[in-house]
Amino acid sequence: MNPALAQAGGPRPFSLRLPIRFTHTDPAGIVFFPRFFEMIQAAVEEWFTHGLGITFAKFVKDGFGTPTAHTECDFLRPCFLGDFLDIAVTLERIGRTSFELSFEGTVDGEVRLRARSVLVLFSLIRRTTLPIEGDLRARLERYRDLGMGGAVENPRG
Amino acid sequence: MNPALAQAGGPRPFSLRLPIRFTHTDPAGIVFFPRFFEMIQAAVEEWFTHGLGITFAKFVKDGFGTPTAHTECDFLRPCFLGDFLDIAVTLERIGRTSFELSFEGTVDGEVRLRARSVLVLFSLIRRTTLPIEGDLRARLERYRDLGMGGAVENPRG
Amino acid sequence: MNPALAQAGGPRPFSLRLPIRFTHTDPAGIVFFPRFFEMIQAAVEEWFTHGLGITFAKFVKDGFGTPTAHTECDFLRPCFLGDFLDIAVTLERIGRTSFELSFEGTVDGEVRLRARSVLVLFSLIRRTTLPIEGDLRARLERYRDLGMGGAVENPRG
Amino acid sequence: MNPALAQAGGPRPFSLRLPIRFTHTDPAGIVFFPRFFEMIQAAVEEWFTHGLGITFAKFVKDGFGTPTAHTECDFLRPCFLGDFLDIAVTLERIGRTSFELSFEGTVDGEVRLRARSVLVLFSLIRRTTLPIEGDLRARLERYRDLGMGGAVENPRG
Repeated sequence: MNPALAQAGGPRPFSLRLPIRFTHTDPAGIVFFPRFFEMIQAAVEEWFTHGLGITFAKFVKDGFGTPTAHTECDFLRPCFLGDFLDIAVTLERIGRTSFELSFEGTVDGEVRLRARSVLVLFSLIRRTTLPIEGDLRARLERYRDLGMGGAVENPRG
Repeated sequence: MNPALAQAGGPRPFSLRLPIRFTHTDPAGIVFFPRFFEMIQAAVEEWFTHGLGITFAKFVKDGFGTPTAHTECDFLRPCFLGDFLDIAVTLERIGRTSFELSFEGTVDGEVRLRARSVLVLFSLIRRTTLPIEGDLRARLERYRDLGMGGAVENPRG
Repeated sequence: MNPALAQAGGPRPFSLRLPIRFTHTDPAGIVFFPRFFEMIQAAVEEWFTHGLGITFAKFVKDGFGTPTAHTECDFLRPCFLGDFLDIAVTLERIGRTSFELSFEGTVDGEVRLRARSVLVLFSLIRRTTLPIEGDLRARLERYRDLGMGGAVENPRG
Repeated sequence: MNPALAQAGGPRPFSLRLPIRFTHTDPAGIVFFPRFFEMIQAAVEEWFTHGLGITFAKFVKDGFGTPTAHTECDFLRPCFLGDFLDIAVTLERIGRTSFELSFEGTVDGEVRLRARSVLVLFSLIRRTTLPIEGDLRARLERYRDLGMGGAVENPRG
């Protein structure tokens, strides 16, 4: 179980645990920073599926995407091969065609990175931004208002 | 549980389940083939840790590596976003300074890829190939002789 | 200029020069093997554009792909940050729906890897394999028969 | 030649041109955003070598690194397979142990992304941050003060 979150008494954000592998590390033996953005994308996908209840693969198959329009990240401490990185996903804001997520990456409860991204709703078919409406907006609002998610302990990958 | 392996009555090879993510897919909507080699590397790392009982991160930290000297792969059917790929690892041969692994990648029991690699034991400090001896050889022989591993259903990443 | 090829008197295969960057290297300070397959893919794309005279980006935009059905590679010597890897592309065989390429990767004329791949012609729209006909077959035959290409000295990336 | 920079009369920042390849693109047919950070890293390496006159590969071999401590990026318009992305590197600030770079990515002069990163000087041997002194500081100051670099039109990869 995600130790950082297990202590929290109240609602807690969705969190994904990912292993740091050889693939992610560089000649300094630490994670090469672009790999963290792939992990953040993985956290977004699992949050869609398990946090919002919208299977991300089906969402894409149905012709939708959520490209990242802005991202920023503080890499506070390095991650090493063999670490397990927990990425907690908080929904900060819901806009007309975009939403903002913040991410906290921890290893054994110690913060390693903090990031913030703006993702836009996009139609892969019409190739345009779409307004966030209906079921998607309702699910985002529910997640934001409850601030709940629950850790995915075994994300299967 | 890995359905392809669950049917087998006897010992079964180590297997790692990995999710196919957006990160892995290309404009054709299928996994871009170099990504499979990253997954195969992940399977080798987990096989080291869980199949041989040698924590891969510690092994690297102790100054050892297992660079791939040869690999070959048949990509039999594509993998799609949302698939869960099970990679089974079989130890085919133990040489003086190298060993040979074969990999079978299945989704819901259907074979998607078959690969075979030769990995060499390497000293990251002396920058040379090393003979496979002692504890490592004993563990490799035990794995080969028993042909056992057991699926890792939730590889945590 | 590609030194390995400059010496050759007769026709020579198409070759792409790529720099080895931090991105490609692992904790051992050498290229992580899956990255070589990304470089081989880059060589295929440039060979399409400059060797066959078919702009690869347009080819994909027109709804075609060339997924790799089989690949094998011998990693003979490691590549290091700062190396320039020349990848020469030879067309070995043209089949009904596939073609076979071999690759030789050299640094300052010293062989670092040899690979061989089978690529299939694929319709991204119909999601099926296509027979190789017309202009594509003619261009492949011409390249194969002449065995010519010419090095791309400055691949722009 | 980089068209965006060619118009400028005065000194211009260092710029690297990179091709957008299949490797970089996702199921939406556009560059997957973590790939841009790999390209930004490539621009930093070439800027070191050609803008500062410090061969990046030698710098790393000598035991130094420049891990990214902070980055932020606005992805203003997507990049497509076949585009050539010019990444201009401006040195914004030199600190005691870190420096700040800004990046502008353009295709045919049209801005596609703007980024800003803080990189720290790091000893790969002592595993600590280092003060920026001597030759490195002098070169950084010279680049900052002149604001000059010159485009690398053919970055060889």
